[in-house]
Amino acid sequence: MPNYTREDFLKLDENDPLAAFRDEFELPEDLIYLDGNSLGAMPKSAKARALDVVEREWGQDLITSWNKNGWFHLTEKLGNKIASLIGAASGEVLACDATGLNLYKLLSMALDLREGRKVIVMEGSNFPTDNYMTQGLIKQRGQGHEIRFAEIDQIIDAITEDVAVVSLTQVHYKTGHLLDMKAITEKAHAVGALVIWDLCHSAGALPIDLNKCDVDFAVGCGYKYLNGGPGAPAFIFVAKRHQGTAAQPLTGWWSHAAPFAFERDYRPSGTIWQSLTGTQPILSLSVLECGLDVMMRADMADLRQKSITLCDYFIELVESECGKYGFELATPRNGEARGSQVSFRHDYGYAIMQALIADKVIGDFRAPNIVRFGFTPLYVRYVDVWDAVARLKKIMKYDLWKNAKYNQLTAVT
Amino acid sequence: MPNYTREDFLKLDENDPLAAFRDEFELPEDLIYLDGNSLGAMPKSAKARALDVVEREWGQDLITSWNKNGWFHLTEKLGNKIASLIGAASGEVLACDATGLNLYKLLSMALDLREGRKVIVMEGSNFPTDNYMTQGLIKQRGQGHEIRFAEIDQIIDAITEDVAVVSLTQVHYKTGHLLDMKAITEKAHAVGALVIWDLCHSAGALPIDLNKCDVDFAVGCGYKYLNGGPGAPAFIFVAKRHQGTAAQPLTGWWSHAAPFAFERDYRPSGTIWQSLTGTQPILSLSVLECGLDVMMRADMADLRQKSITLCDYFIELVESECGKYGFELATPRNGEARGSQVSFRHDYGYAIMQALIADKVIGDFRAPNIVRFGFTPLYVRYVDVWDAVARLKKIMKYDLWKNAKYNQLTAVT
Repeated sequence: MPNYTREDFLKLDENDPLAAFRDEFELPEDLIYLDGNSLGAMPKSAKARALDVVEREWGQDLITSWNKNGWFHLTEKLGNKIASLIGAASGEVLACDATGLNLYKLLSMALDLREGRKVIVMEGSNFPTDNYMTQGLIKQRGQGHEIRFAEIDQIIDAITEDVAVVSLTQVHYKTGHLLDMKAITEKAHAVGALVIWDLCHSAGALPIDLNKCDVDFAVGCGYKYLNGGPGAPAFIFVAKRHQGTAAQPLTGWWSHAAPFAFERDYRPSGTIWQSLTGTQPILSLSVLECGLDVMMRADMADLRQKSITLCDYFIELVESECGKYGFELATPRNGEARGSQVSFRHDYGYAIMQALIADKVIGDFRAPNIVRFGFTPLYVRYVDVWDAVARLKKIMKYDLWKNAKYNQLTAVT
Repeated sequence: MPNYTREDFLKLDENDPLAAFRDEFELPEDLIYLDGNSLGAMPKSAKARALDVVEREWGQDLITSWNKNGWFHLTEKLGNKIASLIGAASGEVLACDATGLNLYKLLSMALDLREGRKVIVMEGSNFPTDNYMTQGLIKQRGQGHEIRFAEIDQIIDAITEDVAVVSLTQVHYKTGHLLDMKAITEKAHAVGALVIWDLCHSAGALPIDLNKCDVDFAVGCGYKYLNGGPGAPAFIFVAKRHQGTAAQPLTGWWSHAAPFAFERDYRPSGTIWQSLTGTQPILSLSVLECGLDVMMRADMADLRQKSITLCDYFIELVESECGKYGFELATPRNGEARGSQVSFRHDYGYAIMQALIADKVIGDFRAPNIVRFGFTPLYVRYVDVWDAVARLKKIMKYDLWKNAKYNQLTAVT
């Protein structure tokens, strides 16, 4: 690593305006955690919150907690916090259900609003649950809808007058490429289509301004950059202008105009609550708030700046130190064109990642050949970049990844 | 209370084979909790479990927990435990999602399996989320399905040759009446229809034998008698013979034949996993296991016997001590014909329940005029029956419920 020393990176940490945030997260000693884009680290406050929900709210206050401790309105309270992170207004976001379910609701609404149009534009190499949910919905409706799969450079051209909905993930889960939300949304609207943005790999990772981009609908994940805990509830965004105009199909009682009237027949609420199904997992939902509260104190421009710099250094060091070992950059080289992750292609990516994990550098592998490193600027340090590459170099130089034990396939989400 | 003394009830507790279970639950001193049918009490083990999931599994093991700590298979592991409580086989039940969502999946499968038939039989006075989800699905499919609402004594006659699915809740949320699962399932099958049983108010409250009754599909709640915590994930049962025969529409990636292959197009798993959507709320799911583990050590016949006896005494005492104040029994008098709850109708039920809650007897109110008392035999004592009625009598005798503050409407689920 000729042009830098480890001390240079330590100095960058010293001058990092976000450095203090790391201490708000629980991270094992000596572990370099580059997988916050799969599961964000634990905010230390989560421990006390989980205990309080279990011991006091559930154990002592029992059923009265629905009012007394605000359980019933958690989904809206947290939704409003998320709204402030993604450029949405109060009353446009709820924290609820899971990403795929929220996508199903929105897609159904969008298809109702664009009756007659049959095409849904998606990116074929996207995280497939979005495809699967869409395929499930199409089959269920039986109205001849079809998905038009387009890869990144074909997307704009794929948005034609027959398109009902453009449903895309803002940051690609494998390559980290960042789509142009504003341009794509404009193109969609120009042909009369609606947009659904999946923010799973962007919410909390970079500045997002849904309303400035005139976005119709969005979904996103609570357990990646928002650090909400394993399987934390997701979120759903419905622009004010679309609320109450179409019905989502998963009409549980919390989406009813008067849930506690226990009426026989469904009446839609007409507000953002109409996007809800029913009772939410309160413990998981409560703990999600800890992640949001930390994130809300960080300056999003600082986060983005640090994220780009961390990734730039990582790319530079991997290429200079390990380039000869066959790593091919899968992520856009231009920081403005990617999310907060770096991916490389390597034929033996699976075994290499296993060896790295054994050496306490946690990233992940995505079939068939992607090694993926997420850089969560709230808690990843500059020196982690240096140390991670040093460990990778050791693994490659001494062929440590060839150890047979690193080829036992184990599933990681 | 002429025929008994409080001491008689203390003696019943002394001889109760289930008495020791109460100590496994956290219950505030002096509180009589008769609302376990809305939110079950907290098993003391839940505290350590929640802490361990947050601190160690999330905080220390991070993403590796999906394998190392079994997160990915929790839904199946807990499903198998629930299976043992409801007469299902291993591999027929998953703990996942919410009751309404699970109902939506099953109803869609059932309608696919009975294409051509257009009628769904339901109980109109049922907990309405089941109706709402069904109405949402019907609208979504747009194939002219309709709900035939029947009340309890009309159900059998409503099941005719044009019926696709009979979708009923085994124990009625308001009145506690218990439907004859075996007879209704037989009638449904005799006319070629399928059945979906909602076990929200029966799972963990009484013996259930789904396979002996030849049930096709079932759903149920994790946070009532199973004591899984607020908004705990629900469960879904698909009889082995139906697995892989029809597709549910909420096809998230966990229901894919190879979730980690990240294929572009959906392929159904063909097993009970096909009933899943996507990533589950791990913290809420983990804590649900605490409730299941307590329940699995109890003898279901003992539970049922105690439940009936508790309810019998409660009815007898309310009628003898408070009958003149206008309470009308809404629950079947015959213990074999009801679940584990007692409901009374009273024109001022709302205010009376508020006054009771202020006096530390927690039951709940269901519009328009039902006061509802749940008796969870794992932790409700015989002496609680005596004390609850004594407090109710005081409230009625001295018109304490007429205090204006008891008429401020507050929502309780």
